[in-house]
Amino acid sequence: MSNNDFAARLADVGADVEATLDRLLGPLALSGEAARPARLLAAMRYVALDGGKRVRPFLFIEAARLFGCDGDGLLRAACAVEMVHCYSLAHDDLPAMDDDDLRRGKPSAHKAFDEATAILAGDALLTYAFDVMADAATHADPHIRCDLTLGLARASGLGGMAGGQQLDLDAERANTPLSHAEITQLQAMKTGALLRFAAEGGAMFANASNVDRVALGDYGRALGAAFQIADDILDAEGNEAAMGKRVAKDAGRNKGTLVGMLGLEAARALRDELAEEAVNALARFGEKAEVLVAAARFTASRAS
Amino acid sequence: MSNNDFAARLADVGADVEATLDRLLGPLALSGEAARPARLLAAMRYVALDGGKRVRPFLFIEAARLFGCDGDGLLRAACAVEMVHCYSLAHDDLPAMDDDDLRRGKPSAHKAFDEATAILAGDALLTYAFDVMADAATHADPHIRCDLTLGLARASGLGGMAGGQQLDLDAERANTPLSHAEITQLQAMKTGALLRFAAEGGAMFANASNVDRVALGDYGRALGAAFQIADDILDAEGNEAAMGKRVAKDAGRNKGTLVGMLGLEAARALRDELAEEAVNALARFGEKAEVLVAAARFTASRAS
Repeated sequence: MSNNDFAARLADVGADVEATLDRLLGPLALSGEAARPARLLAAMRYVALDGGKRVRPFLFIEAARLFGCDGDGLLRAACAVEMVHCYSLAHDDLPAMDDDDLRRGKPSAHKAFDEATAILAGDALLTYAFDVMADAATHADPHIRCDLTLGLARASGLGGMAGGQQLDLDAERANTPLSHAEITQLQAMKTGALLRFAAEGGAMFANASNVDRVALGDYGRALGAAFQIADDILDAEGNEAAMGKRVAKDAGRNKGTLVGMLGLEAARALRDELAEEAVNALARFGEKAEVLVAAARFTASRAS
Repeated sequence: MSNNDFAARLADVGADVEATLDRLLGPLALSGEAARPARLLAAMRYVALDGGKRVRPFLFIEAARLFGCDGDGLLRAACAVEMVHCYSLAHDDLPAMDDDDLRRGKPSAHKAFDEATAILAGDALLTYAFDVMADAATHADPHIRCDLTLGLARASGLGGMAGGQQLDLDAERANTPLSHAEITQLQAMKTGALLRFAAEGGAMFANASNVDRVALGDYGRALGAAFQIADDILDAEGNEAAMGKRVAKDAGRNKGTLVGMLGLEAARALRDELAEEAVNALARFGEKAEVLVAAARFTASRAS
């Protein structure tokens, strides 16, 4: 698959994801007779819409497509994963956390609204992700909905994303450098767990065999690690325009990254090695996996 | 059922809930091979353990017991509801929200730890609630696990608790008094939705008929409304020791309450009327419902 074909596919899926998020967060889509607090819904939309390349839902959807799955339920499930990602950005940007005033080149949620609304928008988006995942409209089989809900929760909580963010904050405060193993662990939790779940969850959605599901999980784990190193390389290279946020901030605040520890050259080599590890995990699927193979190579190449 | 018998039952269930939360938040109980960020787990335990009368899990458990249900899965599901309540307290107390330094007579989470950890502990506790609810250890039937997950999410999100908190913050800022209907709506979302789900969820857990489930939902709705008015009466009466937090603060910050609008006497009458409405919703269950009847009367009487 050429780079252009991959970019077009990524953009296509991204547009579907955007439209589905827009619908899920539309004024009539939310159930119940309760009043809709307009400001909170606006903040949830601000946090969830018009954002990023939608890598997590892309992985979820393409992993399910590998097994012939497609359709609206798949888009809903993929959007649930993206909602968790978006909530985490809104909370990570808060003054008490990473204190970032910019996100994707726009004011962060607590700047566009206010701190309380940004906290609540994150809370409500996280909550809504589980609402969407557990809903019969997402998948006909309640076993699969439960497995997906459980997997999403585990990737996002104490043993996953939230735990990784805490380890990051702890490290920043302790002011002692992390070891290579500690950085790897932190990143596997903070960003890796949800990326891994995105790929594995797509296989779960498609009711893939255990072996296939494990293969997608291995792919997602390696891709997630490559993705984080690529992000750290971008940050170190200081391309402010491409990142849409203040640059070299993480390094300046003593946040351990593998780039800081290994240097740019070795970090690039590790990133490429992990991307190939991701590709190798897909060997059993042959040609069918070309989109996911391209996704792994794209992850590595975006930081050139 | 005598007041003493009811108090003993409430304490018994509370002790079971405490033990189950302690186990669910134990160092070995969380799945996966990931590192456990010790500070985050400590903060989650601080937020969830040793708290309150456990009214929500009590309602959940006693509603299920009405249909002959009991056991560890029931305790797990009830604890998931309580986790959502506890997370909301930790976030509501944050400086950007209600800015409360005390909770149940102890430092609030952001005072005992720090703001970032309090935000993350709330996030992780909310996430873990859905983990517990969707887990096969909680209920054998995945349809019921999905229904409970969905119900919990809807009671807690934009159309429920989080939305109600936003309406409360909006009202505080707007500095224009809310109407009776607006206060009722706000409270039905902010505290009512989760109390209602607690009672209705117990019936869902027990796979009760739709009619029985609706009756428990009506009970929970009326009890929730009575509970909030009783809380506002306690606040207005200024019994600092009984509340464990600064008193008359809500009123001082222009937060609309029915006590402020109607006066103490009329508020007491409305509270008692709602408690009787809750009792009446249980008529179809006869003697079997004596514990839930006592719970409705207790809710009214605690504010004397």
